[in-house]
Amino acid sequence: MSLSPLLQELISSLRALPGVGPKSAQRMALHLLERDRAGALALAASLESAVERIGECERCRNLSEQALCSICDDGTRDRHVVCVLESPVDLMAVEQTGGFNGVYFVLKGHLSPIDGIGPDELGLDRLFALVEAGDVTELILATNPTVEGEATAHYIAEQLEDSDVNITRIAHGVPVGGELEFVDGGTLAHAFAGRRSLRRGADD
Amino acid sequence: MSLSPLLQELISSLRALPGVGPKSAQRMALHLLERDRAGALALAASLESAVERIGECERCRNLSEQALCSICDDGTRDRHVVCVLESPVDLMAVEQTGGFNGVYFVLKGHLSPIDGIGPDELGLDRLFALVEAGDVTELILATNPTVEGEATAHYIAEQLEDSDVNITRIAHGVPVGGELEFVDGGTLAHAFAGRRSLRRGADD
Repeated sequence: MSLSPLLQELISSLRALPGVGPKSAQRMALHLLERDRAGALALAASLESAVERIGECERCRNLSEQALCSICDDGTRDRHVVCVLESPVDLMAVEQTGGFNGVYFVLKGHLSPIDGIGPDELGLDRLFALVEAGDVTELILATNPTVEGEATAHYIAEQLEDSDVNITRIAHGVPVGGELEFVDGGTLAHAFAGRRSLRRGADD
Repeated sequence: MSLSPLLQELISSLRALPGVGPKSAQRMALHLLERDRAGALALAASLESAVERIGECERCRNLSEQALCSICDDGTRDRHVVCVLESPVDLMAVEQTGGFNGVYFVLKGHLSPIDGIGPDELGLDRLFALVEAGDVTELILATNPTVEGEATAHYIAEQLEDSDVNITRIAHGVPVGGELEFVDGGTLAHAFAGRRSLRRGADD
């Protein structure tokens, strides 16, 4: 098909976006050109300034345009509790619950020797330095409940065995609002193994 | 939630894309920043040059960065047959069939008095001038089979009643590969009304 070369280029550039195939890219390109040229220019400007200016927080490795991200820089957050996550997306998910007031440490991945991702790539030296500096009382390991995420959590716990920081792992179990019938066996087994007494005080 | 302002801006800019809600925009922004910064910059550059340089073909109103689009400029296309379409997306769909070798005229919309879209907004004066110039033998009305598309097609046909150009409308009927059971009543009625004899020559 004989399309304008610039249009063709725009369509193929749009495919850099996750989940955008050839048809959606075409639809997006035409929508922007026909109905929202101002939006297209604003998007171009945002992309440029984001790529240019967003780096990582020097303390927690979260995406940030300052040396310290807004969470690390927030005096009201409890710096004694550090939640370890695999990626900024996970951080956003936790932040959106509004229930966590500590700070984070973003690994940007999980241990995966096959892909050449070891402790250095995850910045674990910085995490351990943070813990050894002594002002961390609890380290919540919230890596994903996958084989690699579990391995990463166990590796971190093992390395910190001798420190006196309290190391915890987020609970695995039946999702709230889920039905037992549709929950996989592994999750159910976790839910049973991690059962808690309903008698007041029995568990604490 | 306390996100980096530039990241927040990027997420809201991405929502200019059709079909992208808050969750996908967030996923796209993080994907670009974490895994494909080169792709993000390429996309920004494509958006800018496309918006800046893609205008419309002065003959057929298709998107084009030249005065004449690549189809109007193509000497092998049959300029005696003009296909009238509602939008460049429709043009692409027809081009992708590879079965049409004429040229196009893009209305960029359909008649819709409520929205203030009349013959002028659709460039009908240019279409009629093209027909009156005399080198068009067939005008294929391929507006969408919607109420507005039909009204637009009928309006064009009416206006050209006195010219000797052959005015045709694309066929409506059962889609190829479809099953009668799942076809709506209006389409079935059209399919019956537009039935053709299978006896050789009886129809031509």
